[in-house]
Amino acid sequence: MDTQPIRKTFNQQLTELRERLLYMGGLVESAVHRSLRAALERDAALADDVVDHIEPEINRLEVEIDDRVLRLMALQQPMAVDLRFLAAVLKVGNDLERMGDLAVNIAQGTPRLLRQPLAAPVVDLPLMAARANQMLRSALDALMTEGVDLARSVLAADDEVDGMRDAIFRTLIEVMTREPSEVERSVALLSIARNLERIADHATNIAEDVIFWVEGVDVRHHFAEGPPA
Amino acid sequence: MDTQPIRKTFNQQLTELRERLLYMGGLVESAVHRSLRAALERDAALADDVVDHIEPEINRLEVEIDDRVLRLMALQQPMAVDLRFLAAVLKVGNDLERMGDLAVNIAQGTPRLLRQPLAAPVVDLPLMAARANQMLRSALDALMTEGVDLARSVLAADDEVDGMRDAIFRTLIEVMTREPSEVERSVALLSIARNLERIADHATNIAEDVIFWVEGVDVRHHFAEGPPA
Repeated sequence: MDTQPIRKTFNQQLTELRERLLYMGGLVESAVHRSLRAALERDAALADDVVDHIEPEINRLEVEIDDRVLRLMALQQPMAVDLRFLAAVLKVGNDLERMGDLAVNIAQGTPRLLRQPLAAPVVDLPLMAARANQMLRSALDALMTEGVDLARSVLAADDEVDGMRDAIFRTLIEVMTREPSEVERSVALLSIARNLERIADHATNIAEDVIFWVEGVDVRHHFAEGPPA
Repeated sequence: MDTQPIRKTFNQQLTELRERLLYMGGLVESAVHRSLRAALERDAALADDVVDHIEPEINRLEVEIDDRVLRLMALQQPMAVDLRFLAAVLKVGNDLERMGDLAVNIAQGTPRLLRQPLAAPVVDLPLMAARANQMLRSALDALMTEGVDLARSVLAADDEVDGMRDAIFRTLIEVMTREPSEVERSVALLSIARNLERIADHATNIAEDVIFWVEGVDVRHHFAEGPPA
């Protein structure tokens, strides 16, 4: 960590860090999109792609990004505002990695769905996934542009995704009550809805970290008192 | 942030930080324990206690701990090993906060369970919760004592918890298939199992961060290459 010569300026390194984080975010979007397609189209090869290639690359990037952050902190002794940004990046990397895990959960449900007969979809999981991915894109955009308003829009979208999940749960409970043969398939769909909800929660977390960083106040829990004594 | 005189030594402040983190961990354990009791004993007051008191206090502590970490980073310019510890603390605080959210999810399922008649428990959720809390305690212990072996034991316990969740899912799918009137209650129990599994995942995450910090290598994803170029 401390044997490398410092050739790049702090700003160059920050720019690189942002680029890597965006790349990681793009991989997470792709993992979410592909894992859902794998499950709903019962495509085992696509599921394997998420589990064997995309998610390991996401994990590798978290390690790389942590390392870049720690190096910048150690060698550049950044000012308070940059330090706060770097702390936000550590948390965002953590959230992105968890989102990758959740995509893997979805992909790993594919074999269970493969055993079931194909049926008309009763719930709109692709819409929920698209909304979660849109939240992620907005949260990362907000991080790159210091866009507090954009970040706040992510917080609002989370309520919408929670509403989608509730509607999906209600529908699936009805289906299972009416048709016992649909129980296993419905439980798999419930799990996907739950994983998508958690993915949206992590996007919300990222948006909260952006607001925390930009405003220097903490909106995460509507708590804006001063620092501890 | 920078108007306060520095009276305490770096080590005193680190000690305080550790104490606050342990206190936060204790609150999370309490939230997990109480939320499950609230759900299974259909105790709305206990559920409200988690939602209205314990979780907000957990949230407040994350903000406080972040602030302490940023202050230490900015004012004390810690060495690489301490910096790595402080970065780990930021991530651990994040994980503890998410665990509080998941406990709230469990507590908020209580009203749904309240509408259902009481029945003999078919799955052992308290055992799963106890195991998840034990993982959390071990992970925080490992953080305080630099106990890498203890941290590794948490990683192993996570597989066990995943196994419990799978067994619970299988049982509940059987119950719902046999008895349609049990669907709604079973879905609520499935949700609790899923939340407990995520709580255990976060404890695992903390253990991984401890190993990362102590060993200075990253075992999070069995990835131990050098730093990026």
